[in-house]
Amino acid sequence: MNVFDAVQTVLAIRSYEDKPIAQEAVERIVEAGRLTGSSMNRQPWHFLVVEDREMLRRLGEMAQSGPYIAEAPLAVVVIIDRTRFAVSDGSRAIQSMMLTAWEEGIGSNWVGFMGLEEVKPILGIPDDKDILAIVPFGYPVKSVGKGKKQRKDPSEVVHRERW
Amino acid sequence: MNVFDAVQTVLAIRSYEDKPIAQEAVERIVEAGRLTGSSMNRQPWHFLVVEDREMLRRLGEMAQSGPYIAEAPLAVVVIIDRTRFAVSDGSRAIQSMMLTAWEEGIGSNWVGFMGLEEVKPILGIPDDKDILAIVPFGYPVKSVGKGKKQRKDPSEVVHRERW
Repeated sequence: MNVFDAVQTVLAIRSYEDKPIAQEAVERIVEAGRLTGSSMNRQPWHFLVVEDREMLRRLGEMAQSGPYIAEAPLAVVVIIDRTRFAVSDGSRAIQSMMLTAWEEGIGSNWVGFMGLEEVKPILGIPDDKDILAIVPFGYPVKSVGKGKKQRKDPSEVVHRERW
Repeated sequence: MNVFDAVQTVLAIRSYEDKPIAQEAVERIVEAGRLTGSSMNRQPWHFLVVEDREMLRRLGEMAQSGPYIAEAPLAVVVIIDRTRFAVSDGSRAIQSMMLTAWEEGIGSNWVGFMGLEEVKPILGIPDDKDILAIVPFGYPVKSVGKGKKQRKDPSEVVHRERW
């Protein structure tokens, strides 16, 4: 799938088939995050791969906005340094991962935004790092076609030469 | 080009051929930003397309870290609301744009990070918005192959089940 097709069709997926993700695909998803560009190439991130069902259940319980993590075959916890560009860089890495997964037919969604302090000790995450997001991945339950997105009209957000 | 190939090979490009970008490609790049997912689908962004050579020169002068904007055939100024998730959402949109451009052979780089207050009046950008970045786009001067990236080793940033 080419990049623009992926950007056009990717949807937020919150329910997943009970089907594991091949390790090769898991690796590609994480690689996509690791290889992403960052400000001054600081790479202020860590990617914690969770596939253990019991841990996924616990994460689903703890992440208020993402109970469906419990049903996903995979979640990547994206952890960032407390530095100026880290939220931005980590967000770029997540976007790379979500698009890379999507071209393999794997959906995902962004859960949480910083906070999630109570998750840190159970995953052994150092106190001086932040959880930017937990991103569950899995095959969509419903077949999804060309995503119909609800987006602002170009006339609202695109400007030419001047606002 | 598929997504993972784009993520693997994309490089920061800071010198551009003197060659315009077809309008179709400009539109695709901006569409890739506009269609990107965002927290609660708030789409806290605006994309200001600059192709006017004189304005590109002025932007190159004003953006300390990006004098090469002056030589680019296109820059997209990414403007965000002052809301909690806007830096993160805008960063995702930029990542989508950079990858979409790359598959068309068009390189780009991220210039600036907030600030750039003096650019706002010359582009008519409202006071209550921020410039997240200026992203110049253009065809790379040197032919770039499979990008050799300087990245931390997976053992440094990838964790399995626990930090």
